[in-house]
This record gives sequence, structure tokens and C-alpha cells, in this order.
Amino acid sequence: MNGDTRPVAGIDVGGTKTAVFVVDSAGAILGRATRPSTAGDQARAADAIVACLDEALEGTGFARADLRAAGVGVPGRVDPHTGSVTLAVNLGWHDFRLRDALERRIGRPVAVENDARAAALGLHERGVLGDADDLAYLAVGTGIAAGVVLDGALHRGARGLAGEIGHVIVQRGGPSCTCGQRGCLEAVAAGPSIARRAGAASAVEVFEAARSGDKVSRDLVEDVGRHLAWAAHLLVLTYDVQRVVIGGGVSHAGAAFAEPIHRELARMRAVSREAAALLPADIVQILPAAAEAGAWGAVAIARRAPVTIGQNPAEEVVQEV
Amino acid sequence: MNGDTRPVAGIDVGGTKTAVFVVDSAGAILGRATRPSTAGDQARAADAIVACLDEALEGTGFARADLRAAGVGVPGRVDPHTGSVTLAVNLGWHDFRLRDALERRIGRPVAVENDARAAALGLHERGVLGDADDLAYLAVGTGIAAGVVLDGALHRGARGLAGEIGHVIVQRGGPSCTCGQRGCLEAVAAGPSIARRAGAASAVEVFEAARSGDKVSRDLVEDVGRHLAWAAHLLVLTYDVQRVVIGGGVSHAGAAFAEPIHRELARMRAVSREAAALLPADIVQILPAAAEAGAWGAVAIARRAPVTIGQNPAEEVVQEV
Repeated sequence: MNGDTRPVAGIDVGGTKTAVFVVDSAGAILGRATRPSTAGDQARAADAIVACLDEALEGTGFARADLRAAGVGVPGRVDPHTGSVTLAVNLGWHDFRLRDALERRIGRPVAVENDARAAALGLHERGVLGDADDLAYLAVGTGIAAGVVLDGALHRGARGLAGEIGHVIVQRGGPSCTCGQRGCLEAVAAGPSIARRAGAASAVEVFEAARSGDKVSRDLVEDVGRHLAWAAHLLVLTYDVQRVVIGGGVSHAGAAFAEPIHRELARMRAVSREAAALLPADIVQILPAAAEAGAWGAVAIARRAPVTIGQNPAEEVVQEV
Repeated sequence: MNGDTRPVAGIDVGGTKTAVFVVDSAGAILGRATRPSTAGDQARAADAIVACLDEALEGTGFARADLRAAGVGVPGRVDPHTGSVTLAVNLGWHDFRLRDALERRIGRPVAVENDARAAALGLHERGVLGDADDLAYLAVGTGIAAGVVLDGALHRGARGLAGEIGHVIVQRGGPSCTCGQRGCLEAVAAGPSIARRAGAASAVEVFEAARSGDKVSRDLVEDVGRHLAWAAHLLVLTYDVQRVVIGGGVSHAGAAFAEPIHRELARMRAVSREAAALLPADIVQILPAAAEAGAWGAVAIARRAPVTIGQNPAEEVVQEV
């Protein structure tokens, strides 16, 4: 931007894997890499992120020092002013000064943001949903959270917690959640919760069993779809966005993931004219994880990073709408 | 405003009663009146609203023509640009050009807004919640809806439907709702729903029975409190507001209404440090209807009305955040 033609790196740190895109100023991907995420120890985690970045830089002709900046999406609570991760339950991080840790290693400016929020911003910036200026991205992965763009700007909320709908209680007395409550949306419909509920090793396994006709898995997958359709409906009723996009690691499961959601949305709309007016057809889109909303979101954050290290992000990032 | 010292009228049209404040430019109430609301026929409804306004003007020394403007809060969907009520289920209004109907009768500029949204704006404008620039007002009356102020400005959403959380499904297969769905928050916890669930004539009766120890009523009132606490929690998790205020006609019931909500909020917070961090103590306030958030909200809308009739509201009203 502003005539700066240096590439940026978008680093999407997921609950299970980290993906890096190195992107030129025209938006073309120059290099990419994916590695398992490193939870726990903060220094080791920062080293692992930089190793993944180095792998993405290989063969691009660029080194760390050539980057304009790096943007990082993290599945947790982030203070975008300081770039600290306040809490990322699934990575075991508390008060991790991630921006500082990465700037020390990379030597270039780094901006950190919640991953769902970054993805929502990236979808908006790339115009993936046409000219929708009000959109929500519902990330269904190791956890569940929504990123929301209102009137073209990121909505962070007063404490930076906006969109934490993974902890809305959807089933009183339901499965225990990492947050201590029972029956949170996340405890019912996030990847590890799906696996746990089925007694399976992974959510992938459950969706495969459903596809091959296993009755218990099919019922479970329908139940997950109902809850995610409910969550999309909730995002429409609260924020009145023009689009809700559902993505995240679990959406890898493809049709087995998407169809129960679409079925439930159709059922909700069929109830009455009024219900259909509240939830217009096609307002909810399911974007397979292959669309890489997370990595593109991190690129959008990188584009908003300050020009020198140790600085807070540019005004368009920290502004709250 | 802008040196204009003429009084304004705030008209809060509720599902059951209409309240009017005539307020001078310093914010003092000069006159007030309350009458039952007139549902159905639009011309009769407009006449009844003006009759209530005239009653409020009596003895103030001012006539309709002396008003700078009138603001109207309506429990339904409003197009703030045209001042039309698209749908107000509980008043039986569809596509009611209310602004035009009232401007013809009053001869002064009129601005119309959803009542919960108007109330949220009024709470913000009067600084009732300190300097909170992010707040939600949850109106529990004949229906349920939330008005939301984000960063000091009204959040309307892309279609003007933001905050329609009365139609979030909270109990699959629960009581039928006016919208055609089952188990909506409104079908469980709005005034008429409380009465219907108890087989009572009114919600007031149910709260009174609960107070005098009737077990069935007490259980029902506890259930209503749980659902409203859930709704407040939802508003915090989605919008990340600094304050949630619960008011509306049903809050007239006082402690019998408020205590079950506070009990449930305390239970939610006690679950874990994490749950308490998501829902800080004192973030939810219950404002008895006596505080007249609705009428003050209509006053705030009046202050934003255009200076001549037949115009759309000033930019600060139509802007979407």
C-alpha cells in the first residue's frame, strides 16, 4: 500500500495447524507453508511460527528482512494495541506478548489479531462476498468464535471480546466447556467436542462415519448442523449483517458438514413468511476451509501493521465501531 | 439544540400504553400524559397518539405548533429514512407511514424509530450509565428486542433489524411465537407469554402470585429470569458492550422480576474465573420501567428530527455504525 511494493506475510495460527502466506503487494501468493501449531511454551511457539514463515519464504527470493510486515491471526483474545494474546485456551497461552516475541525474531513490524476477526476483515477486503459492508465470519474449528465487520470496519467491542459466541449456552446442562460452563455452543459443535461426543478420535472420523451411513454419527452431525444454523441465525438477528460465512477447520468435512446446516436453515425459513423475512435465503454461506479465510485474514492484518517495529497498529485497525 | 429553545415531544408508543413527555431544551419535563395504545386502524391510531400529545401539552403554555419536533418510539420495525413502520406485530401495523400521518396532524417535523433502539440512544445521551459508549437496552414488554449503541452511535444493521433477539430460539419445540417459530425468547419471556404460560390474565398477576409464594408461579418466574439472564449474557458475548440494561413494561414487577435474573447471572459468574471474566459483575443493570427509558428515548429521537416536515432525519440518526 502507499506505493510500498514489499511483500507481507499472513500467519494463521490455528488450534492445530499454522498456515503462512507470503503475498506480494498485488495480492498474489509468492510462497506458502503449513505446520502443526506449537501449544504451551511461548518461546518455542514463537520459534515454530518463525520456522513456518521461513519455510513459506523459501524459493520466493525474499528473506524475513524484505517483508513490509507480518500479520498474525490467533484463536483467542488479543489486545490489538499491544499485540498480546490475553488468552488462547486451545494453545495454552496466557498473556503472551506475541507481537514483541515475533518482532524480535523477524525484525519487521508485526500486528496480531483474533483469527475469526482477521478472517472477517480479509473476506471484506478481498470482496469475497460482493460489496457486503456488514458481514460475520463464524469460525468452527478447535473452538468457535465470530468475527464481525460492521459498515466496513472491524467490530471489536469494548473489551475486544465481541463475537465470543462459542460461549453462548445452547444446551442447559449439556457437555462441559473449557470455560467452565456447561452446554456452550463450543462444547457442542467445535471439532474436539464433536469427536468427544461421538467417542471418536477426531471430528473428521465422525463426519466420515456419518457419510458411510452410521446412524449415531449421522444424528450427531445433524445436531451439530442444527446448532450452527442456530448460531448463524443468531448472528443475523443480533448484528443484522448482510452475510454470514461459516468456515474454519471443521468445514473441511465438506458436504457432510454443510448439508445439515443448510437443511436446518431451510427448515427455519419454511416456518412462516416472518421467519423467512428475518433469515433471507442465501444470507448464510459455507466456505470450505480450502478457501483459506484465516491466512488471507492474517494478510489483511499484515497490511494494517505499523511501518516500524514496537508500534501499535494503524488507526484503521484499532478503531472500534 | 443549536440555540433552538423550543420544546420537543417524546412519544413512546408501547404495545399496551402510549406515554408522552414534553421536554424543554434544557431537558426538564414540562408536561406528560399516558393513554392506552390504539392498535389496528392506522388513522385512529395516529389520532389517538395526537390526543395523548395534546393531553401532555395541556397546561404547559405550549401548543403543537410551538414544538420544535416530535420523536416517536415504536415496538416494531421502522424505516428511519421514511419514518414508516414496516411491521409492528403487537399493534397490528403493516407498512404504516407513521411519520407522514403524524406530521399532517401535528404540523411539525416527526422522526420515528424502533422503541428499544430509541431507549438505548436516550440512555446514552443522558449519560444514565456513566460514560459507557457501548451499551445494550433489552426491552421486555409485549415483545422482546434490544437496542444497541456502539461507540456512541446507534447500531441499526444492514436492514434495520439489529437487536431482534426476541426471535432467537431458546427452547427447541417450546411455545409458539407470533413469528411462526417455536421457542423464541419472546415466546418464553415477554409479558403476554408469561401470562399464557401460567394460564393467567397478565404477567403482573404471575409475578404477584410468585411473590405470595405460589410454587408454579415462582418456578415460572425463575425460568423467565434464567432466560433473560441468558439474553443479557448473549448481548455481552456478541456485542461486547460495557453495559446491558434490562427494562420495559414487564420490569414494572420490580424485585420479583429482577431477583431471578440477578440470581442466574451470579450463578453463571460463579462457575469459573473464565465465565466471570466474560460476564463482569454489575455489567447488567435492571432499570424499572418507572425510569421511563422509552419516553426519554423518544425525546432523544425528537432532538434528532429534521427542522422541516417531510424530511428524513439528520445524518446522526440515519448513519449506520
